[in-house]
Amino acid sequence: MTTINDIAKLAGVSRSTVSRYLNSNGYVSEDATQKITKAIEETGYLPSQSAKSLRTKKSGVIGVILPKISTETASRVITGVNKVLQSNHYQMLLTDTSLESEKEIEFIRLLQSRHVDGILLLGTNQEPALIQAIEEANVPIIVLGQEIAETISVTYPDYEATQTMIEYFIEQHYQRIGFIGVDPSDPAVGQIRKQAYEDTLKKHQLPMNENWVQIGDFSIESGYQAMQTILERSTDETPDAVFVVTDRMAVGAMQCMKEHQLQIPADIAIATTGASTLSQYIEPSLTTIDFLNEEAGEKATELLLEAINGKCPQKKLMHNYRLLKRDSV
Amino acid sequence: MTTINDIAKLAGVSRSTVSRYLNSNGYVSEDATQKITKAIEETGYLPSQSAKSLRTKKSGVIGVILPKISTETASRVITGVNKVLQSNHYQMLLTDTSLESEKEIEFIRLLQSRHVDGILLLGTNQEPALIQAIEEANVPIIVLGQEIAETISVTYPDYEATQTMIEYFIEQHYQRIGFIGVDPSDPAVGQIRKQAYEDTLKKHQLPMNENWVQIGDFSIESGYQAMQTILERSTDETPDAVFVVTDRMAVGAMQCMKEHQLQIPADIAIATTGASTLSQYIEPSLTTIDFLNEEAGEKATELLLEAINGKCPQKKLMHNYRLLKRDSV
Repeated sequence: MTTINDIAKLAGVSRSTVSRYLNSNGYVSEDATQKITKAIEETGYLPSQSAKSLRTKKSGVIGVILPKISTETASRVITGVNKVLQSNHYQMLLTDTSLESEKEIEFIRLLQSRHVDGILLLGTNQEPALIQAIEEANVPIIVLGQEIAETISVTYPDYEATQTMIEYFIEQHYQRIGFIGVDPSDPAVGQIRKQAYEDTLKKHQLPMNENWVQIGDFSIESGYQAMQTILERSTDETPDAVFVVTDRMAVGAMQCMKEHQLQIPADIAIATTGASTLSQYIEPSLTTIDFLNEEAGEKATELLLEAINGKCPQKKLMHNYRLLKRDSV
Repeated sequence: MTTINDIAKLAGVSRSTVSRYLNSNGYVSEDATQKITKAIEETGYLPSQSAKSLRTKKSGVIGVILPKISTETASRVITGVNKVLQSNHYQMLLTDTSLESEKEIEFIRLLQSRHVDGILLLGTNQEPALIQAIEEANVPIIVLGQEIAETISVTYPDYEATQTMIEYFIEQHYQRIGFIGVDPSDPAVGQIRKQAYEDTLKKHQLPMNENWVQIGDFSIESGYQAMQTILERSTDETPDAVFVVTDRMAVGAMQCMKEHQLQIPADIAIATTGASTLSQYIEPSLTTIDFLNEEAGEKATELLLEAINGKCPQKKLMHNYRLLKRDSV
């Protein structure tokens, strides 16, 4: 069994240097870092986590709870999280709720039982049971993507970005603007984006038509279905533009438009949110809102590390966005 | 502090029933399961992991090491893994190497230090250091996607599927077949698929031309670049078909073909591997190999649970595939 003393000996440095290295606690020279890394690799030395935790009260690991691993949004956030963790010698454990919101609570408990130093939650709801689990947690928790009262949260500018996109439609002389959203149980995507859509139409005195507004469940198929319903129900007056709250649903909606022989954007324009690879390579390419998810992941992780280190970071932070103007509008 | 006795009392069942429930060890009726779940939810009871581990020597958690969370392949595998774990009351911790292979070793150690019962590794290489880390691990490890000697592994039929696809080109009367691969450090994708390509051309006495063979790094951009190089180098005789080993690189290659005003498949055909959403919605839709990754994830997880429960599962398993014939060939 390799000990910390063996590592020190093999690397030719003092035991306290190895300890500083292992606990990311104080200065270790580049040269010493290399020697220690080599010694650890050669011996397969595994620092006893419980012993390490007892000494530093830190495990060097944060937990991340994702709604669904398969979305590009999630993977970009993780890229940003990884960047910040690596430069701070932290590691990451992930959990995937498969969009089952009750699992968020289960995983907050699981991650604590695995002694993570903090948790980053990619939020999907504001259920009281979730808020309670966050309040009762004994490690810092940061929520990205939803505002949760009393918790440090990084939110996307859902309202502003949606408003800007609807006004971009209007500038381009579209007047009958439809909307494909999601269930209001997701406040950021399901409520705020819809509110922005309605407010912007009102502000510009444009017609509202309930036949032009449908919801989906984030899947491509549901976007197709929602568009199909809009076209069926608005036979006398069809929309000339549709805003869809996620890229995947927009891909489905576009498929439906094509099957109805509608020319995009001549007969009907479409814009969306997400800036996915698919939105870029589909034809016509989709005009979309880019929420710069990788940067958001970096920012949230920096706040989490501050909280872990006993600082009190800013409680509410709104992230940036940009409009990607492509061929579908 | 809630104890197991409090849960038993609240649920109106015996302490041993709660214990069986918590340890997934023996029969618990549907009715009792519901009552216990409710009691645990209401109290926020968190079974002490160390106490639980001491009793059962099981933590009820498996670790998964992914090469890159952002690929659809990985997310489909995870969907399959999650399915099997849920029906066996297991939870999952994930790690993401961002395609840095040395992290696979680091994470095998990290996950063990978090007391997982077993590890599923989505393999990318056969480096001696990795094989050593697998051999030295004190929990069962299953590798999916690469064959690792002495380890339980589930592999994809890289050779057979590639051969079938090249022969499909030949049936469709393509004769000058190019290839975009990846670095041979990835044996399954970088070596076996290329070997199948070369063998199949030889078998059918078709011309081999080194100008038609390039490699990329899995990114869309690298696929574009590889295709660009193929077109630049083969001015006198260009390929009339190209097989690309991953969907993302194929999307880049297709982009390059379009910019050169090549009609797909009339001027040049393209086929690939991965069956991603992008491959389906891009125009023309891509003919591709579907490795049924979700099922592969299920299968690998079933083997892992068998190994955790002391059975000796089959050591080597080759998974299925199907050819999706679309518009690009």
